[in-house]
Amino acid sequence: MSLQFQIEKTLGSARAGRLFTPHGEIETPVFMPVGTVASVKGISQDLLEDLGVQILLGNTYHLYLRPGVEVVRELGGLHKFMSWPRAILTDSGGFQVFSLNELRKVNEEGVTFRSHLDGSSHFFSPENSMRVQIGLGADIIMAFDECTEHPASRERSKSSMELTLRWAERSKKYFEQHKNEVPWKSSQLSAVSSQPQQIPHPAFSPVRNDMGFDGACQSLFGIVQGGMDLALRKESAERTVGIGFPGYAIGGLSVGEPRELTREVVESTLQHLPADQPRYLMGVGTPEEIVQYSRLGVDMMDCVLPTRAARHGLLFTSEGKISIKQARYVKDENALDPNCGCRVCRRYSRAYLRHLYAANEVLAQVLNTIHNLSFYLDTMRQVRHSIRLGEESRFPTGL
Amino acid sequence: MSLQFQIEKTLGSARAGRLFTPHGEIETPVFMPVGTVASVKGISQDLLEDLGVQILLGNTYHLYLRPGVEVVRELGGLHKFMSWPRAILTDSGGFQVFSLNELRKVNEEGVTFRSHLDGSSHFFSPENSMRVQIGLGADIIMAFDECTEHPASRERSKSSMELTLRWAERSKKYFEQHKNEVPWKSSQLSAVSSQPQQIPHPAFSPVRNDMGFDGACQSLFGIVQGGMDLALRKESAERTVGIGFPGYAIGGLSVGEPRELTREVVESTLQHLPADQPRYLMGVGTPEEIVQYSRLGVDMMDCVLPTRAARHGLLFTSEGKISIKQARYVKDENALDPNCGCRVCRRYSRAYLRHLYAANEVLAQVLNTIHNLSFYLDTMRQVRHSIRLGEESRFPTGL
Repeated sequence: MSLQFQIEKTLGSARAGRLFTPHGEIETPVFMPVGTVASVKGISQDLLEDLGVQILLGNTYHLYLRPGVEVVRELGGLHKFMSWPRAILTDSGGFQVFSLNELRKVNEEGVTFRSHLDGSSHFFSPENSMRVQIGLGADIIMAFDECTEHPASRERSKSSMELTLRWAERSKKYFEQHKNEVPWKSSQLSAVSSQPQQIPHPAFSPVRNDMGFDGACQSLFGIVQGGMDLALRKESAERTVGIGFPGYAIGGLSVGEPRELTREVVESTLQHLPADQPRYLMGVGTPEEIVQYSRLGVDMMDCVLPTRAARHGLLFTSEGKISIKQARYVKDENALDPNCGCRVCRRYSRAYLRHLYAANEVLAQVLNTIHNLSFYLDTMRQVRHSIRLGEESRFPTGL
Repeated sequence: MSLQFQIEKTLGSARAGRLFTPHGEIETPVFMPVGTVASVKGISQDLLEDLGVQILLGNTYHLYLRPGVEVVRELGGLHKFMSWPRAILTDSGGFQVFSLNELRKVNEEGVTFRSHLDGSSHFFSPENSMRVQIGLGADIIMAFDECTEHPASRERSKSSMELTLRWAERSKKYFEQHKNEVPWKSSQLSAVSSQPQQIPHPAFSPVRNDMGFDGACQSLFGIVQGGMDLALRKESAERTVGIGFPGYAIGGLSVGEPRELTREVVESTLQHLPADQPRYLMGVGTPEEIVQYSRLGVDMMDCVLPTRAARHGLLFTSEGKISIKQARYVKDENALDPNCGCRVCRRYSRAYLRHLYAANEVLAQVLNTIHNLSFYLDTMRQVRHSIRLGEESRFPTGL
């Protein structure tokens, strides 16, 4: 078994559970911070561990360009490369390639695109995406899909969904044939048993053999598409489940549609996904949204919002959003969020954070990111706690 | 007493001792990291504590512009503003203003200069510099001096030295009249005894009353100038000592002269400074140099080199300098410095550090800075240890 999912408590549609991966256990529902090129911008891995991060998301497109899959593979995979002993999920590259707009060309075989770095030409297909994701060696990898643009006609949404389904089959086929090539399969397991690692980090116990994961490999999730059409979403969900994956993602949302529509599509699609398998809603959301989607029965989410907003001085607090650049904070001696116990709120004043931001100091980004991640992770902790207590009234508002 | 200096062991000209300040004890010889605008770029105060930093340097010119002395004063001084419970030293602003070149104008009264940020016009005099430094509230503050340019004629060096001596008298006079206005004198002492701080940090014990520092204030150091002329340096030292300060700095070096000349001037000047008072060599140096100057009897040094070099990917190691951007490190699984025990060398490979730098990730700057600071602080720890052991052969090379 490479992945086990246990639902331990439900509350309405919400579920609290545990996902067991070759690199440790994840309490769900979970928010996954984004570490685009093998780093959550500005935050060291020790800090991520302290914050209680159990799973990170890496972007295949970015890692493919830099440092390149061969480098990561030769160095034993992403976990070892970035010294992150806990779980990792990589996306398929489909969404990033989709975002390139003018720089991409889609056909049945795959997507030709130009690098945003140097304009060089590249090609991603389901097989290529699998090859790259196997080389990176995340615990959970994603089928290569086409993210349908919004708005799209029913015909366009339908043909795009069909393409994603054909690519899902190809992704699964390639993965099944090559899943034994994951770099930690050989290098890390043997590193543990025979030779010492070159960088011996005490927290680095790569593969949880005690979980029965000896010989474990990666897990491939399918992705549901179908645009904003509920019938297509149902069809996409059922046919993706028909192909058979250990977990399912809802993709193609947060692409410019109104939030109420996102919610409607999510709620409707979830009904067509197996209740006993993990459900991953890609690319959301605000603190309020991650609470809301957990309530609907989503188990996994990721979003650049907490980290990106931090870099722009936008901070999430229990009293609402704060734009720390504002002059009103120049002499504000209070903690950023009086109800937050993170190392930033315990130590620094709003006045100091405002100064760092105004002076364009790198520490502004570091501290702001620590706080926002803390806020997201605490919000999810409260969500899980509320589900386990069976007290819906205890659900955080995300504010 | 606001400052006590104990020399506990000597070895040749080198001395190991302790400097007691209102914000804690400093083991000397000491290297002071530079926290220009109330932040060591990218490094949180917790990390600086972990690294064993006992004293930080702040730049008066930068802090005067941003966030401004009134903000810092109203918030209780620099220690409280940046949540740094240990010692701080501020420079006088003289050197930064000197670096502005085209933007400054010197006369007997002081220096008119334009801000590098917005071109606005400002004026620093000995009195102004003291007023600002008292408002910032560092434990050790510096007399306002003119840093003589290099090369300079004997006449120019002499008249510049005379100006610095007159400014030293004015600095001392103003300081003596206003030293009771230091912000922590009232706010922090009362904060400890009566009302809780708004940001209660457990490590924050602002004034060491147990050291007999109740009612303590700042200490003002004099600065020796005199260009590269040894006779003028002697005269400057003797007359500055004649004015009387609790510590003396050697300024006006590292301004473009050859390193051999720097060393000659330092060695010669040190002979004219009181043996029982702290001696601070401003703005040096490389790891080799800080070892060398410690050997000559310098007690305090500061330099932007470890932090600035880190931002450019230049890393100091026990095996020499490394430019981490080089392609040779792409697949190098080794620790940056196999002889370094810092949290970067314990956890990450050169390949990962090289990747972060090449991908322009902020974490590159953070990790590189942690390592370089660690290397400097460890070098000084070894220097102190060697002096205490009385074993000159144990002196690190700084390599």
